[in-house]
Amino acid sequence: MPVVALTIAGSDPSGGAGIQADLKTFHQHGVYGTSVITLLTVQNTQRVSRVEVMGADLVREQLEAVVEDVPPRAAKTGALGSAEVLLAVAEAAAGFAFPLVVDPVMISKHGASLMGDEARAAFGALLRVATVVTPNAHEAAALTGRKVERVAEGEDAGRALLDLGARAVVVKGGHLDGDDAVDLLITPDGIERFVTPRIDTRHTHGTGCTFSAALTARLARGASLPEAVEGAKGWLTEALRTAGGIGGGIGPVNHFVSAGAEVK
Amino acid sequence: MPVVALTIAGSDPSGGAGIQADLKTFHQHGVYGTSVITLLTVQNTQRVSRVEVMGADLVREQLEAVVEDVPPRAAKTGALGSAEVLLAVAEAAAGFAFPLVVDPVMISKHGASLMGDEARAAFGALLRVATVVTPNAHEAAALTGRKVERVAEGEDAGRALLDLGARAVVVKGGHLDGDDAVDLLITPDGIERFVTPRIDTRHTHGTGCTFSAALTARLARGASLPEAVEGAKGWLTEALRTAGGIGGGIGPVNHFVSAGAEVK
Repeated sequence: MPVVALTIAGSDPSGGAGIQADLKTFHQHGVYGTSVITLLTVQNTQRVSRVEVMGADLVREQLEAVVEDVPPRAAKTGALGSAEVLLAVAEAAAGFAFPLVVDPVMISKHGASLMGDEARAAFGALLRVATVVTPNAHEAAALTGRKVERVAEGEDAGRALLDLGARAVVVKGGHLDGDDAVDLLITPDGIERFVTPRIDTRHTHGTGCTFSAALTARLARGASLPEAVEGAKGWLTEALRTAGGIGGGIGPVNHFVSAGAEVK
Repeated sequence: MPVVALTIAGSDPSGGAGIQADLKTFHQHGVYGTSVITLLTVQNTQRVSRVEVMGADLVREQLEAVVEDVPPRAAKTGALGSAEVLLAVAEAAAGFAFPLVVDPVMISKHGASLMGDEARAAFGALLRVATVVTPNAHEAAALTGRKVERVAEGEDAGRALLDLGARAVVVKGGHLDGDDAVDLLITPDGIERFVTPRIDTRHTHGTGCTFSAALTARLARGASLPEAVEGAKGWLTEALRTAGGIGGGIGPVNHFVSAGAEVK
């Protein structure tokens, strides 16, 4: 019987990001995926041409139906689209008996906004119920009002997010300066750095979704937070290294990379 | 580089049916999945409490975005929800350069209608552009106005669907009488029977979606239609045999069953 993980996120019909990337990542980790859809996009690897945000009631009803009958061992959020949806998810999440990974998705690779201004303002409510928040450098900068370009600035932003109520933060190194990609796990206990070689590829569509899904899958399977970060980062690095061949633009990572015999 | 398959179907947040089952099935077959969402349901293994049908324009736009940039080797349809969506998909499908599997989903396991009366009337348009149509006994009866309980009646219904314009029909045996589950592949060349032991399980949520997705994945990987039917049926039988453990009601089949070293 597989363990269960839940994603609460938007749909990418081209399959590289959103709930599609999350379900593929869960499945590749041997985890049964459930998925609450918050918004539909019209997109492919070259463009995002439409974003349709679902009503908060529809999101809430999906979430209740899933959690009551197929309770997950871990959950994640991706694009939520509106302040109403964000608050509905935060309210439900306050009662979750399982870890919640919050990926603060704001902007797609093609510049389309996936989080409204009001939602950004309401984000604190979600931050405070998250087990871990996983911003990239741009998201960390937007959430803290700081410049986040160097690793040291990423550490400062992570500490600022703890001050705003987060219990743990992973500031991802993909957009930080440096030859290596350095992810930072920032908790009240201190800072841990996870270093992998930077992969030179244009195929980064859905990278953030995929990382947070891998992190969630590993938490669902019983890994500790540092184990899950290290495992997810290693797996994603391989998925980036072997990406390519799908779509004419910024293609998806390779979700078929082995997650390891003993996934953790 | 994986081959690509596309599903055009509804969302089941509990993960056992709809695009979620299709994406899991594609992935398990080593096939990159894309997915156009036609409707959102609120459901789990015990109930379907809401069905929200998307507009035909949103479905059309998703379909164009995916097909132009990530062209599939095969596609399938599931729940389409309205006559407008059905006609939009049929119109687009007339130009598809790849096989199309049409699963005529009408009613969920819990009785919720996933195809309106008007859509049922408009179904002929989709039937005529399909490579193969995959009704179960109830759907074959509804589409032909015949009684379909015995294998011979399934054969007659299949021939009637050929007369209505279908190029090939798989009448599935799950709801036909008999100790074995007999699927019937009916084409202008004749009828082929595929026989597997009937699996005694209540965990049949998403069986139809999963079968048609496995068929589509195998067509995408180059199998002939009879090879794809035989392979998909064998794989589904094992997925039914090992199902269980997810949800408190009619649970999903086991999408983690190996699709075979050489998937066909």
